[in-house]
Amino acid sequence: MSLRLHAPALLPCDPICTVVRDAAVDVDDDGRISYSGPRATAPAVDDADRTVTDLPGILLPGLINAHAHSPMTVLRGMGGDLPLLRWLREVIWPAEARMGSADIRAGMVLGSVEMLRHGVTTSAEMYFQGDQVADAVLATGARVVIGVPIIDLPGMDWRKMIDDVDRWIDADGVRFGPADRIELGYGPHSAYMLPIEALRLVAESARQRGALVQIHVAEAHDEDINQREGHGSVPQLLDEIGLLAGRVLAAHCVHMSDADIALFARRGVGIAHCPGSNAKLASGIARLNAMRDADIAVGLGTDGPASNDDLDLWHEIQLAAMLARLSTQDSTALSAAAALLMATRGGAAALGREDIGELSAGRWADLVHVDLDDPTFAGGIDVPDEQLLANLVWGAGSRRVRDVWVAGEQVVAFGEPTRVDRQEAQAVVRAAGARVRV
Amino acid sequence: MSLRLHAPALLPCDPICTVVRDAAVDVDDDGRISYSGPRATAPAVDDADRTVTDLPGILLPGLINAHAHSPMTVLRGMGGDLPLLRWLREVIWPAEARMGSADIRAGMVLGSVEMLRHGVTTSAEMYFQGDQVADAVLATGARVVIGVPIIDLPGMDWRKMIDDVDRWIDADGVRFGPADRIELGYGPHSAYMLPIEALRLVAESARQRGALVQIHVAEAHDEDINQREGHGSVPQLLDEIGLLAGRVLAAHCVHMSDADIALFARRGVGIAHCPGSNAKLASGIARLNAMRDADIAVGLGTDGPASNDDLDLWHEIQLAAMLARLSTQDSTALSAAAALLMATRGGAAALGREDIGELSAGRWADLVHVDLDDPTFAGGIDVPDEQLLANLVWGAGSRRVRDVWVAGEQVVAFGEPTRVDRQEAQAVVRAAGARVRV
Repeated sequence: MSLRLHAPALLPCDPICTVVRDAAVDVDDDGRISYSGPRATAPAVDDADRTVTDLPGILLPGLINAHAHSPMTVLRGMGGDLPLLRWLREVIWPAEARMGSADIRAGMVLGSVEMLRHGVTTSAEMYFQGDQVADAVLATGARVVIGVPIIDLPGMDWRKMIDDVDRWIDADGVRFGPADRIELGYGPHSAYMLPIEALRLVAESARQRGALVQIHVAEAHDEDINQREGHGSVPQLLDEIGLLAGRVLAAHCVHMSDADIALFARRGVGIAHCPGSNAKLASGIARLNAMRDADIAVGLGTDGPASNDDLDLWHEIQLAAMLARLSTQDSTALSAAAALLMATRGGAAALGREDIGELSAGRWADLVHVDLDDPTFAGGIDVPDEQLLANLVWGAGSRRVRDVWVAGEQVVAFGEPTRVDRQEAQAVVRAAGARVRV
Repeated sequence: MSLRLHAPALLPCDPICTVVRDAAVDVDDDGRISYSGPRATAPAVDDADRTVTDLPGILLPGLINAHAHSPMTVLRGMGGDLPLLRWLREVIWPAEARMGSADIRAGMVLGSVEMLRHGVTTSAEMYFQGDQVADAVLATGARVVIGVPIIDLPGMDWRKMIDDVDRWIDADGVRFGPADRIELGYGPHSAYMLPIEALRLVAESARQRGALVQIHVAEAHDEDINQREGHGSVPQLLDEIGLLAGRVLAAHCVHMSDADIALFARRGVGIAHCPGSNAKLASGIARLNAMRDADIAVGLGTDGPASNDDLDLWHEIQLAAMLARLSTQDSTALSAAAALLMATRGGAAALGREDIGELSAGRWADLVHVDLDDPTFAGGIDVPDEQLLANLVWGAGSRRVRDVWVAGEQVVAFGEPTRVDRQEAQAVVRAAGARVRV
């Protein structure tokens, strides 16, 4: 049976961030939106045919987390505030080495539950055992874009890693699962963790299959310097070997020259901006406004929950604006509307997806309902559009995400996941953490 | 009747941020702590004499918001993202001019409710009609340190403003109300909004009475430049006229030279660091580590909810660390423990208060209980101390503040205020906002 939702306010997240009052959204049996707009001009419905739900708050598209390593919920907070390299070598890598398939799946289930409760319906994930990541997301009902990790480390064979992704895509396709919930692609870690030969092979495999490549680019200052010595900047290196000719999502991109930005714009590379992780790890402030001015598709990412330390994309929305304003000394550098669009349609564009990120006919009905029962919604629903946006984006954030749908299926109701038991998911991760902690 | 609380973990917020396991806190009839520490060494209690409550989470001191203009909840989000001066002149100042006593009181009630729910038990407030601010806080049960505004604007008489505070303190004392919930002091807006004669008079009045002076210092870059032309820096000016000889809490302090910092350290001036407001308004990043290295007492403030836009001090804790790390390029620049201590004992020290900010015998029993029923507490309670701190400070933040006490009285139970109806407080502010909006 299909679905009709009524709400006093709707943010379709179209390019100008329209606020529609007294709105309706229709979802068809296949989970796609058939109408999104004013209730007055919605098609007539036969109530016997369709479940009609009146909601008290704001409807908007599901947010898109453009860069995450969510199974690391198992490791969250381990090592406290050790310096980065000691933290990785002494705590995180040894603990990760102990994580088995069940631990990775459990970590991803909890990460997915956490994100859904914050209104994040799609995440771009880079983590080992992509099959466990996919399986976890099929359990919670979220949507995922997997960049299966490819890395050159002792005991690992990058040729086999690439070959495994090739064969998986050749078997299941780039998108599969109910309502195309899973997208498969390649996750070469970075230019500094792989030989050039491997990057070339990934580029070729991905382009042949129309698959997305997710890769870390210019996250740390020294990484960039190392690359420059041999091959110009990392973006230039990636272009030389043909990687930028396909679909590419570059995470971080903190240390980018004007030429690097122009190159990414020319090649249509999407960027996952991760302001929280970049701040917490002291990596730097990415040149968000320069990237946006160059018309690069920029989404927002949390990065992994072991380093950030939550998967609340609303914090990234707020932080992106704060850091853009500080670095340009301009308090209007990023409006509430622009920041919200980055987390929705911007993320979709960065991932090269035209089926999510906006509430419009033909797209998947990935929806979020925020109710207004919070002191941060000072004026309630009947305020000017810009105040409603400011209250939602700068004030309430994730506090009042009440209901979430993916492809028209309700996966969060009144703040709790419908498909899995949250407390049980927490308990499983707790046990996994106790087992793998070094 | 007195109170005993048991909890599996206690953060007294002593100078080294000890984590006490299997802990007890005793509160006497007068609302002060008589014991805080391991349960094993707690004094024996007669259950008939004392309410014993077993809590499942972490106990810590109530947080201290060292700089706020909370009645501005009425104006939150108005004007959206207008440039600062247009926002003030076209939206905020005209709306404020329409706010009557009842509106100010309603705004403060809602702000107080919001803060209590986030575990903030004390706030330092600068807003017109200090009597309404005091009355609102007496209604919610919070604690407040009022800097009654003194400002030189058309239609206002700064002499009368100072005189009114003098008479109020002479009548009621510096601290009054149940469990000393109200502290009164002077709130001269800033060096640029008052003649030097006024600042001199404030200094004298406050020093005579042992009252705290709250003042904005070096928030914007140009403010500092303007002052330098005549009198050196703002801190030097304030010192020359004798203001720093008394108790002073300086808010913002973004643009401070080494000499300014050394001067504030020498004079024992407290600083309210407001990273969120400074970022959102593009004021700059205060030199937190330099201030801390100079042994200045630094607390954290949200600033007003019209500009920040929420009163969630946990966001300031997280942001303070992120900005400190970015500006020093050191990912260990501010640990979770150090950031939490700023929001508790640091705030108390900045306000010159030795009766709050730490759970130790003799201080007021201003307490927060955070339960761990959230994905961000990956490992639950039984994890190493540094992981528990990281999960609380970087991950959970305000999400799971469950119960709050002020002077031993429970003012929040299971996330809702006990003394006032939250939804009614929201409705009253909503009506006020609709009336004053321009």
